[in-house]
Amino acid sequence: MKALQEKIRKDGIVLSDEVLKVDAFLNHQVDPVLMKQIGETFAGLFKQDGVTKILTLESSGISPALMTALELNVPMVFARKRKPFTQDADVYEASVHSFTKQTNHIISVSRAFLNQADRVLIVDDFLANGQAAEGLIDIIDQAGAELCGIGIVIEKAFQPGGKRLRDRGIRVESLASIRSLENGTVTFQEEAHAK
Amino acid sequence: MKALQEKIRKDGIVLSDEVLKVDAFLNHQVDPVLMKQIGETFAGLFKQDGVTKILTLESSGISPALMTALELNVPMVFARKRKPFTQDADVYEASVHSFTKQTNHIISVSRAFLNQADRVLIVDDFLANGQAAEGLIDIIDQAGAELCGIGIVIEKAFQPGGKRLRDRGIRVESLASIRSLENGTVTFQEEAHAK
Repeated sequence: MKALQEKIRKDGIVLSDEVLKVDAFLNHQVDPVLMKQIGETFAGLFKQDGVTKILTLESSGISPALMTALELNVPMVFARKRKPFTQDADVYEASVHSFTKQTNHIISVSRAFLNQADRVLIVDDFLANGQAAEGLIDIIDQAGAELCGIGIVIEKAFQPGGKRLRDRGIRVESLASIRSLENGTVTFQEEAHAK
Repeated sequence: MKALQEKIRKDGIVLSDEVLKVDAFLNHQVDPVLMKQIGETFAGLFKQDGVTKILTLESSGISPALMTALELNVPMVFARKRKPFTQDADVYEASVHSFTKQTNHIISVSRAFLNQADRVLIVDDFLANGQAAEGLIDIIDQAGAELCGIGIVIEKAFQPGGKRLRDRGIRVESLASIRSLENGTVTFQEEAHAK
């Protein structure tokens, strides 16, 4: 998605070979017009799939997920993160490991909002090691719902999450796929292919 | 706002005289069409005020804030919640007390995304004791920015936050103002007035 790539180049900050900061338009300050374009793009990609629900994870996934939900005219559900030591019988839950923070947390979704009649599109801001996506898929499985696919705003293609999900036969659509952040520079997959 | 009141009656759950659960369309599962109507309504109310930025607090404020930002064509910034014991020099921060959870947490906004040229509209999902709003106002003050007003989706008018903010001369616009949750029933302010 051209507008997103331009935004990443203009306002993204490469903090290291592995970390891209997009606080200026996605993770802290949010560009609503770009989010709407992202929502339209995901909706276009998955419009044939009979999606009944968009599933994401608080907080940074909410903006692109909401705009996708608006375009597809279905509800959006955001999984909540919480400490591992509280419990609630009325929720589906999964454990998610964060490599960047070296912590585990529990993500949960109320049983009221996901069931076996649902066809679910996961939307999230980043895909790196794929732990968040795996947790959301676990929850969809527990609900007996069907996974239509995964829409990712920015995929760090040099990390293993995307390959692992695609190897399972899951459709993963990334609007910007980053090949490398080396030398403080963002290189997208398409550019790498063109070389 | 009629559509919101109807949604609260239909899908809201009164858990006690003080707690209204709106997980079905605002706090966990989110109705994107309703959020868009909410954004349009806030944008209409504050369109003369030269708003340059929408400020909210993760996670439940993000959906109505994003739609308001889209309508006013300005960025949205969500303050982050974190533990009191981490620190970061590049952020404005404020302490917020939660009466429901009896905890304090720190909310923070990067200095990069709020400055003295900004005219800020706060948007949040709930107003009860007003602690979150006070924390956000504190951050706006630290930035030297101007507060245009506060847009609240659901105000619990039987709790003191709204009065306290209005007594300070702040414009607070609530799309649904709840007079009482007694006897398991939602009574809106307008209905109370009509009696």
